[in-house]
Amino acid sequence: MKPIGLITDFGTSDHFVGSMKAAILTVNPRASIVDISHAIPPADVTAAAFMLLMSYQDFPKSTIFVVVVDPGVGSDRRPIAVKSGQHYFVGPDNGVLSLACKKNQRHVVIRSLEDDFFLRKPLGSTFHGRDIFGPVAGHLSKSDVFEKLGPVQNALVECRLPPVKADATSMIGTIAAIDHFGNCITSIESSHLRALSEKNLSVAIKGARPFPMRSRYCDVSKGMPLGIIGSAGFLEISIHGGNAAKKFKLKRGDRVRVQRVLPFIVRTTLS
Amino acid sequence: MKPIGLITDFGTSDHFVGSMKAAILTVNPRASIVDISHAIPPADVTAAAFMLLMSYQDFPKSTIFVVVVDPGVGSDRRPIAVKSGQHYFVGPDNGVLSLACKKNQRHVVIRSLEDDFFLRKPLGSTFHGRDIFGPVAGHLSKSDVFEKLGPVQNALVECRLPPVKADATSMIGTIAAIDHFGNCITSIESSHLRALSEKNLSVAIKGARPFPMRSRYCDVSKGMPLGIIGSAGFLEISIHGGNAAKKFKLKRGDRVRVQRVLPFIVRTTLS
Amino acid sequence: MKPIGLITDFGTSDHFVGSMKAAILTVNPRASIVDISHAIPPADVTAAAFMLLMSYQDFPKSTIFVVVVDPGVGSDRRPIAVKSGQHYFVGPDNGVLSLACKKNQRHVVIRSLEDDFFLRKPLGSTFHGRDIFGPVAGHLSKSDVFEKLGPVQNALVECRLPPVKADATSMIGTIAAIDHFGNCITSIESSHLRALSEKNLSVAIKGARPFPMRSRYCDVSKGMPLGIIGSAGFLEISIHGGNAAKKFKLKRGDRVRVQRVLPFIVRTTLS
Repeated sequence: MKPIGLITDFGTSDHFVGSMKAAILTVNPRASIVDISHAIPPADVTAAAFMLLMSYQDFPKSTIFVVVVDPGVGSDRRPIAVKSGQHYFVGPDNGVLSLACKKNQRHVVIRSLEDDFFLRKPLGSTFHGRDIFGPVAGHLSKSDVFEKLGPVQNALVECRLPPVKADATSMIGTIAAIDHFGNCITSIESSHLRALSEKNLSVAIKGARPFPMRSRYCDVSKGMPLGIIGSAGFLEISIHGGNAAKKFKLKRGDRVRVQRVLPFIVRTTLS
Repeated sequence: MKPIGLITDFGTSDHFVGSMKAAILTVNPRASIVDISHAIPPADVTAAAFMLLMSYQDFPKSTIFVVVVDPGVGSDRRPIAVKSGQHYFVGPDNGVLSLACKKNQRHVVIRSLEDDFFLRKPLGSTFHGRDIFGPVAGHLSKSDVFEKLGPVQNALVECRLPPVKADATSMIGTIAAIDHFGNCITSIESSHLRALSEKNLSVAIKGARPFPMRSRYCDVSKGMPLGIIGSAGFLEISIHGGNAAKKFKLKRGDRVRVQRVLPFIVRTTLS
Repeated sequence: MKPIGLITDFGTSDHFVGSMKAAILTVNPRASIVDISHAIPPADVTAAAFMLLMSYQDFPKSTIFVVVVDPGVGSDRRPIAVKSGQHYFVGPDNGVLSLACKKNQRHVVIRSLEDDFFLRKPLGSTFHGRDIFGPVAGHLSKSDVFEKLGPVQNALVECRLPPVKADATSMIGTIAAIDHFGNCITSIESSHLRALSEKNLSVAIKGARPFPMRSRYCDVSKGMPLGIIGSAGFLEISIHGGNAAKKFKLKRGDRVRVQRVLPFIVRTTLS
């Protein structure tokens, strides 16, 4: 059983997610399908790529991820499948798969989905989640057909987050996602922070006093902000029992600075 | 494995969808259930009927569709199941099943769900998704009990869309649904358009200049409108990379005219 | 096949529900998972407890319910699993499981989830749906490991609804939930009402004339209010074909009085 995880900008009001699942089940009636998110803002490739990056490691090793945020559907952008470690990633070659593939660099093979055998007929020009990506995921979940999907291609289109900048005592990243609870997930990974002393760090955002990094929400009082390594391995800005995004009016792209708390040195706010 | 597809106006905040699935799984623990939409506006039978019409052909042949938009629950409206080709449709006899059944006319048999054996006990008067339609779908997914569900009835209650009107050079339909991306799905089917010359058509809506019909979004520039045969086989009004409903303030029921583009004749706007 | 039913405050925009399902499938790739609701307001333990109370009886006897509304995640609140009759309930010991467990009092055994074997490693401090509750549910769905999960504890933290008060001719409860259709589900159970004469009752809310209790929506005219025993076995305030919460501006916590309709006695409004 290789589960299939779905990330799209389809929303859940329309039949699109259901029709994509129908396309999967038409190929593999026993497929196990998990919705990751269908609430990616329409055409927001970067948000989809980061959603995949945050979530894929939670899934079983053999999972097939289908990411359909596809503003170029019907154009000459390529549909691809990527084998990366034991995971498969399927979607348009527009950057949606790139952040996860870059992170998971071992044995990355990219194939262009050119063999019609694995696609729905007739192939339309407006809904490749149903016509291409769903059927291919169905086939991959049923048997090991990766090598038959189409020719290998060398690289994939990348989407980039603003780079994390670091010096010896501080690090600047950006808010890459904001969750339903108002936690602000930054581009700063826990591995980045190991370069600094992880023990005594503070976090600075615009318009607020710096606040401490802690390892549990309850390490600060209710209503107080903290930085915390969240469940996806990124620095998050949170409020214990509250909504950080709302309170601090934070949005995607806002800058975040992490700095060592040095004794006797006044912490500066982010300008 | 006969999958079960669900269309309701239950929303997803409450436990109603979960309880209907529980009723299915109580009968058939191995049922494969696919959500099509639970965002039909409350009691909007026509929206549900059109959602079914747009989506059912994407599903495997043996799929059982359960459509529960049921403002008459507890009254004397009948619960029915319809066998149409290899599909089954289950729901109240209030029109929700009629557009798909009318389209898929081969071998339509309608049965009134009168045999208590297939229903949940005790049978309530407020939630027949759980008490009648879910259990019946569970039974249909497990074995071929269609003929035991109850007596055959001759006709079903129909819901109608405003008819598409046509002459030799033009065709007038209405907007039947608007999707999450702002695409406006009209009542005009691709088969209707074959009566006109499909090659050179333009689309007119109120308050906008006529725009061309094309077969791919990228056949017009970004931000420009087009008519396109969408993934469900209907004419849709779209904007390449944009939201047509928002831009043109379109709503369900608005009229749409398709006309041949004749050389040297000025295209008229829709009054 | 023991199905797993999920109630959380995770919303469906983020990957949290998907990651919790991934954690379940990592343990039991064949798990059958049903979403009950992910729209519990953040940290609203009482709403989650009442959602579970309303829905759990609709599920097959062996169902495992996972309820993750967990504002104390990472603190010393205990993660627990409860065996109650044939059902299992899994979640934080903060009250979310208490209303259903109290109702279903036969053979209740509570275990503290202390055996690391059943948890995800590494165990984080912010997402126990993925790290504790999902994996434990996966194990329970696969084999009978309840007794290995950890030590028995005597009691669980309770969340309480305002008590229903009754005298010989009337009963006062509160609105405990409002559904997507605007039906207001009260804390008054059908069993409570048996103490009164069930035949001839009226319902009073603030700002409206008392209205009758009926057993079907269609027992009153369209647009008219009624009290009705809803699908979960509680008194609900509804409008036939309408939205009672909106029309009467009702909210959770509002008082509701049910009274016998005595001949020749003027029904009073609720002050």
